[in-house]
Amino acid sequence: MRVSVVGGSVVSKPVETLAEDLGRLLAQRGHTVVCGGLGGVMEAVCRGANEADGTTIGILPGDDRQAANEHVDVAIATGLNHARNALVVMNGDAVIAIDGAGGTLSEIGYAQVFDRPIAGIRTHGISSNDWLEQCETPEEAVEHVESSV
Amino acid sequence: MRVSVVGGSVVSKPVETLAEDLGRLLAQRGHTVVCGGLGGVMEAVCRGANEADGTTIGILPGDDRQAANEHVDVAIATGLNHARNALVVMNGDAVIAIDGAGGTLSEIGYAQVFDRPIAGIRTHGISSNDWLEQCETPEEAVEHVESSV
Amino acid sequence: MRVSVVGGSVVSKPVETLAEDLGRLLAQRGHTVVCGGLGGVMEAVCRGANEADGTTIGILPGDDRQAANEHVDVAIATGLNHARNALVVMNGDAVIAIDGAGGTLSEIGYAQVFDRPIAGIRTHGISSNDWLEQCETPEEAVEHVESSV
Amino acid sequence: MRVSVVGGSVVSKPVETLAEDLGRLLAQRGHTVVCGGLGGVMEAVCRGANEADGTTIGILPGDDRQAANEHVDVAIATGLNHARNALVVMNGDAVIAIDGAGGTLSEIGYAQVFDRPIAGIRTHGISSNDWLEQCETPEEAVEHVESSV
Repeated sequence: MRVSVVGGSVVSKPVETLAEDLGRLLAQRGHTVVCGGLGGVMEAVCRGANEADGTTIGILPGDDRQAANEHVDVAIATGLNHARNALVVMNGDAVIAIDGAGGTLSEIGYAQVFDRPIAGIRTHGISSNDWLEQCETPEEAVEHVESSV
Repeated sequence: MRVSVVGGSVVSKPVETLAEDLGRLLAQRGHTVVCGGLGGVMEAVCRGANEADGTTIGILPGDDRQAANEHVDVAIATGLNHARNALVVMNGDAVIAIDGAGGTLSEIGYAQVFDRPIAGIRTHGISSNDWLEQCETPEEAVEHVESSV
Repeated sequence: MRVSVVGGSVVSKPVETLAEDLGRLLAQRGHTVVCGGLGGVMEAVCRGANEADGTTIGILPGDDRQAANEHVDVAIATGLNHARNALVVMNGDAVIAIDGAGGTLSEIGYAQVFDRPIAGIRTHGISSNDWLEQCETPEEAVEHVESSV
Repeated sequence: MRVSVVGGSVVSKPVETLAEDLGRLLAQRGHTVVCGGLGGVMEAVCRGANEADGTTIGILPGDDRQAANEHVDVAIATGLNHARNALVVMNGDAVIAIDGAGGTLSEIGYAQVFDRPIAGIRTHGISSNDWLEQCETPEEAVEHVESSV
């Protein structure tokens, strides 16, 4: 299936490692990674997926697909700026969020709107939430979304 | 200024009253209401604003501006579906969230993305959040956004 | 009704005068002007409408509504860049095109997509076209769209 | 390179054959086909490309990527309705238009906006146009865009 991975565009080294591990794991389990195509979590998850010969799709905010990070296999330009966050979520069968600020929070919201199972690792906690599953590791997150689709 | 009001499209009577009170208050203080143009919180806040001779702008998900609730003065059709949530937030100078599910959460996220002050009443709580001010009443919410812009 | 006016963003003085005359005429006949909110034809039509106490709506490509020309009464930011052309057409009951390049051509196309009557003045000619009415003057263009809605 | 192919969604048999021939030719010359992902010219060009082992990307108006025709390899849902026409053009390095109505005309306009070389076969003629090259055959159209990028 396709898994959309969302998260911060500027992240710490441990978060980057986490995202790279997640990308590798998703590829090993045969999933395609969808992301926003830029840096931080987006770049790390694509790098991990590519290391394991996985496929990556990057849905970019700008109108130039050359802006994609080098580990994106299929780059899609949108020119929509932040409204493209809806497209990142819509194009996955499930979502995993790592870290992140407001953009990531908008994507957690869209996961509920589009009825996509979603797991979070070191990301926003949301009170009275019944759709975001908080996980500790990439393994746990992947298992959650695999069992929920 | 313009205040974007976001919230559930199907809400309880007390939430509806809250939204109507908020709309009236915003209009009395000279603010224009921006919202998603449909039902629930969106309709109630427009009704309240209209009662106090305020102006309301509704930014709709569909491509037919006739779908706006009857209290919308300027209806803008987008045809963007849920991606229009970004436009609702972008077109206010500040945001107030009442109640709501994933769509409202996406808008709380966009408030941080577009650097808009935001107050929430009976809406999502977000851990480690430093941009959403939780308020008890319309008065408190309006004061928060007025003092933050 | 609402009339969307589309056309070049950098135009000659005679075209500017034509757009200003059109804006004045639309306002005198009670119509609201919808446009892309920026310069050239967009600014001239808004200036003309304002001179006759008409109302103008500007649907902008960027995410900052302050970018609207000074004759826009209701500015709507979209952040969609050129994809906002669809919204400019969608928000009118009819369309009038003056001059213009590719952006204007995209809007002439959208007029057919959204089934809006459209008149053109000194704009693209399209072979085998059955929806764009070529007109010589603002009067003729307004009469065409009034009689077609 | 990527070539965006645009055209009618309901077309005659000869136009369908033309689009299929074009898809086959593009794939044989190593190009990836980008299109709107639905029926008519979009489906025929994808079928042709697939017959020659080419890759196809479909950028859909709706929010369900399952709506893509069966010859689309990478389906991207947008939920933007007709505003997605901008994305179809933006994601190619060049454009070829076959037949078509207003949607196709909007894409011919966008080709100028995004500065993409464009060839047309049995499509709209545009007066005073200096960017759309009218061609008789798929071979001629492909040669035009190859030599223009």
